[in-house]
Amino acid sequence: MNSLLKDLTVEGFIQELASDSAAPGGGSAACLAGALGAGLGAMVSRLTIGKKGYEALEPFFKEKIVELDELHKELTDLIDKDANAFNGVMAAFKLPKNTDEEKAARSAKIQEEYKVAALVPMTTVRACKKVLDILLEIGTKGNKNALSDVAVGALNALTGLKGAALNVEINLPSIKDEAFKSEMTRELAEIMSNLDYKISNLVIEIRDLF
Amino acid sequence: MNSLLKDLTVEGFIQELASDSAAPGGGSAACLAGALGAGLGAMVSRLTIGKKGYEALEPFFKEKIVELDELHKELTDLIDKDANAFNGVMAAFKLPKNTDEEKAARSAKIQEEYKVAALVPMTTVRACKKVLDILLEIGTKGNKNALSDVAVGALNALTGLKGAALNVEINLPSIKDEAFKSEMTRELAEIMSNLDYKISNLVIEIRDLF
Repeated sequence: MNSLLKDLTVEGFIQELASDSAAPGGGSAACLAGALGAGLGAMVSRLTIGKKGYEALEPFFKEKIVELDELHKELTDLIDKDANAFNGVMAAFKLPKNTDEEKAARSAKIQEEYKVAALVPMTTVRACKKVLDILLEIGTKGNKNALSDVAVGALNALTGLKGAALNVEINLPSIKDEAFKSEMTRELAEIMSNLDYKISNLVIEIRDLF
Repeated sequence: MNSLLKDLTVEGFIQELASDSAAPGGGSAACLAGALGAGLGAMVSRLTIGKKGYEALEPFFKEKIVELDELHKELTDLIDKDANAFNGVMAAFKLPKNTDEEKAARSAKIQEEYKVAALVPMTTVRACKKVLDILLEIGTKGNKNALSDVAVGALNALTGLKGAALNVEINLPSIKDEAFKSEMTRELAEIMSNLDYKISNLVIEIRDLF
């Protein structure tokens, strides 16, 4: 596929997702969920700036717009990067394996490419974590007519993070480098720590204001 | 806006979401999350049909493809319906209120339109519930190379359901018809019952197979 997934229409992207090819799959859907979270956070920030009663928070929300606009762009680009993340693994498996040297080179390349396939969704995990930290910071500070959008944004970014984490984890059993694997596992555990709890609390706090 | 949101590019949709207009907002993002869930379920079903070892399940997965394709189309159409769901409320508020009769007619129309604004996201909730029931039915039955996509699909559809539920609930305080409100609240509680638990279990069950 030469054209970019992010340039498909929304309807076309979903049709492509539903089709009988493995890519785009859950990894790309996770990036899009994260991008929706960042986009909603940016919207709430924009809907707060210039509104009466929120003057003191303008510098804060202007900063969040810059950060969230960068993150939704990064996550939108990751939709395509994730769809291609496994291409390297597949190409490595097609390398020749006639001699012992070829076999060794092929195995090394396969291992290298499995790491790439794990690191792309890890980039998505990290970006979603940044989105969630910002949404937790925004909390109930924004335009009260858009509070539900903070909550929906947080739910989307959390789904993006969890979906991407699954796409990191699914590659780990194929990787032999134990230090790499345990570092990935450690980072995921650290990022996930208390996150469900914090986001559930944010959603409850927002619902109580309806 | 004359053009449909579902016809925007993925990147364009996120930019539109992040912009300083209230629509599209969290309600539309919830529909898209649900559509991603249905799309991933359809993909896994398609990736299972025709594969060795899954012959006995072909009739089951063929049925799921039909159901999930309908649901991702419905949810994609709801992206636009949700973005317009509040237009009726805003138009009703602009009705004349010079005489007592006009005031009464305006109030009645406002109430009617608030119900519409609650029923559109309720349609999204119901569609996401159908997607989740199907994904729970699919469970770990599908192509084992696509199991993580079932999990990511379920996380997306659950976020779609929860996001849409917030958009039902945010309209309820404006509605005076107590019977309508309590019926909405009852239906949401029934749909949500045990759902987090079931989806968490599905994700754990799938992760254990990595």
